[in-house]
Amino acid sequence: MPAKNWSYFHAGAWKDIYLHEVPHPLLGKVRGKVFLKEPLALTGMEVSFGALPPGAAVPFLHAHRENEELYIFVKGRGEVLVDGETIAVSEGSAVRVAPAGARSWRNTGAEDLVYLVVQARAGTMARGTIEDGVEVKGKPAWRG
Amino acid sequence: MPAKNWSYFHAGAWKDIYLHEVPHPLLGKVRGKVFLKEPLALTGMEVSFGALPPGAAVPFLHAHRENEELYIFVKGRGEVLVDGETIAVSEGSAVRVAPAGARSWRNTGAEDLVYLVVQARAGTMARGTIEDGVEVKGKPAWRG
Repeated sequence: MPAKNWSYFHAGAWKDIYLHEVPHPLLGKVRGKVFLKEPLALTGMEVSFGALPPGAAVPFLHAHRENEELYIFVKGRGEVLVDGETIAVSEGSAVRVAPAGARSWRNTGAEDLVYLVVQARAGTMARGTIEDGVEVKGKPAWRG
Repeated sequence: MPAKNWSYFHAGAWKDIYLHEVPHPLLGKVRGKVFLKEPLALTGMEVSFGALPPGAAVPFLHAHRENEELYIFVKGRGEVLVDGETIAVSEGSAVRVAPAGARSWRNTGAEDLVYLVVQARAGTMARGTIEDGVEVKGKPAWRG
């Protein structure tokens, strides 16, 4: 039987991201971070959900070997630092960082800063969204 | 002078997604959707922010040629339909759909359903997040 075409993961509401914890090569471990590639069996991207409490900052800079990163901000207020330049972010902001960019980020607001980080291999996206899509005949068969 | 390693786009707060409108091959145009690949010059992924009001459903099924899709739910309650199976989603839920999956989604709650769709080419993600990262020497030089 072929594998299903879908998988599902529920991280919990944003306020519960702190229940997640991941191992980290520089910090030992990090609370308030959860990676989706493994639980979802993703093959073309890595995505994480993260949160920083008020006053918190990522205490190091990092870059990447092959992967483009996109930081998407879901809640709160913060700043992203890339190659010494500061970008103010809030709900609905997105910052793309090329592999070589030296980056960090911090919470500058009074509530949690909640964000997603998407990674994909730079230069692999030949087609845009709509060009890659194909219509499937028939209407969505919702039950109820 | 080399191009900057970053770009920035601000879509506005989630309640303002309806201010965005995109052309659509099946529907003419769609309100409440904004694509990030072009404004951010993304090279490895396409990402969109979308919203459906209460009672609304995407009126067609679609699949993809080469791209894996990840649906991430930011606010509200809904359902995703893939190959005839229904998945209930809410804040913090993520659904991966392989290119061949026939998919649709709908709002089943009383508030807007706000979500992100990430596309990347299936099978291109050799390394996970942490393995692709490299430390950059020096501390983040925040001003202020």
